[in-house]
Amino acid sequence: MTGKLNVIGIGPGDPELLTLKAVRVIKECPALCVPKGREEGSSLALSIVEKAIDLDGKEIIEAHFPMVKTIKQGQGARGKGQEDLDAKWNQTVEAILSRLKEGQNVAFLTLGDPTIYSTFYYLYDRLIKLNPGLAIEIIPGVSSINASAARAKISMGLADEKIAILPANYMGNIRSALETFDTVVLMKVHKVFDEVVKLLDEMNMLKGAAYISRAGMDDEKIFHNIKDVRPEDLNYFSMVIVRK
Amino acid sequence: MTGKLNVIGIGPGDPELLTLKAVRVIKECPALCVPKGREEGSSLALSIVEKAIDLDGKEIIEAHFPMVKTIKQGQGARGKGQEDLDAKWNQTVEAILSRLKEGQNVAFLTLGDPTIYSTFYYLYDRLIKLNPGLAIEIIPGVSSINASAARAKISMGLADEKIAILPANYMGNIRSALETFDTVVLMKVHKVFDEVVKLLDEMNMLKGAAYISRAGMDDEKIFHNIKDVRPEDLNYFSMVIVRK
Repeated sequence: MTGKLNVIGIGPGDPELLTLKAVRVIKECPALCVPKGREEGSSLALSIVEKAIDLDGKEIIEAHFPMVKTIKQGQGARGKGQEDLDAKWNQTVEAILSRLKEGQNVAFLTLGDPTIYSTFYYLYDRLIKLNPGLAIEIIPGVSSINASAARAKISMGLADEKIAILPANYMGNIRSALETFDTVVLMKVHKVFDEVVKLLDEMNMLKGAAYISRAGMDDEKIFHNIKDVRPEDLNYFSMVIVRK
Repeated sequence: MTGKLNVIGIGPGDPELLTLKAVRVIKECPALCVPKGREEGSSLALSIVEKAIDLDGKEIIEAHFPMVKTIKQGQGARGKGQEDLDAKWNQTVEAILSRLKEGQNVAFLTLGDPTIYSTFYYLYDRLIKLNPGLAIEIIPGVSSINASAARAKISMGLADEKIAILPANYMGNIRSALETFDTVVLMKVHKVFDEVVKLLDEMNMLKGAAYISRAGMDDEKIFHNIKDVRPEDLNYFSMVIVRK
């Protein structure tokens, strides 16, 4: 096996936030692998990269990622459901490995940065297990968290300040994080937005909160008063950053 | 005033991790402002940018940042010490504003990403107070945290996992963060490294810990067994990432 797998953070959405390295490596790879998820996944990643790089002649491999919740519930389970999931994972693993075996380098594109909530790591263990000597490089990108803070002109931390990043699914953790940390970043906040606003109001922390949706994309929205956010402003690519 | 202040994250050290936008805006600005700190500050930021961009003919403004601890202790204090600090801040503020008033755009360079532990935000409030209508853009960059995780091939979070980022100065907070969060990033760990190793050992969490120093720079070091780290491997630009 001579091909190398490059896992590339393409940044939060603005094609200009691609790194020089991302551009160079994507240009050099004949095959691009993009996760195809529920949430605009592959088309969005490709459309961002296409604005900066000519993708003509490249092979596009769409990776089907089973829903995370299903996977978690499926762990240790037996029978048809688990087999279906395994089959889907294996399809993607095989698609990548077959190109690498032919000596082609593959670029696996991830929105934002690969080390923060990227679907790629679900694949990583399987790839390494099958090929312990796999040549793989993870190329960091601008995370949507940093981009959102920058667009809202917020500092997430200075000197000895502590930062917590929480998926907003578990409301139970938010209160203690808000009490303990100087900055709390609530990811994917659209699902629990009303509860978050209510809690921040109770804790008298609304003033330090900002809502940022689709930072750096054409339809970006920023609210420094999160009570102004309407249901139609809520979005999968959104977060609330709370500063004390 | 017609000039615009661009605060630019230049990434963690590898010049190829500059974004396309950082490169374009730095090229367009006649004046660059770089923080001159204790820790290699200005020379490092400039040396990174110089490898990717021709800086010939650009004016370099060195910004002197008083030590953070002194500032914190100085808050609310009166007398000579506070006046000296104010004078230093004002020098930098004036240097930037004078160029902006001449209609020049200024690029303020920060290592990594401007929203994470960047000295720039100490300047921000003063600039805005003096010039509420200041044209300012914060351009995100690849954070050293994301770069370190990528180099060590670690995922910092998947699905509903919670991430805590702590400056390591306060050992008191580390234990509860390690208990509560799925991933804990300990910044500037060189000062308290032995205590951190001892605590992780006690909590049986050494196995999930990695030490990364100067990620993406020529003298980068990565240890997946942090007990192998020797005193000479410790560095200001270092962190420990602990995964459960």
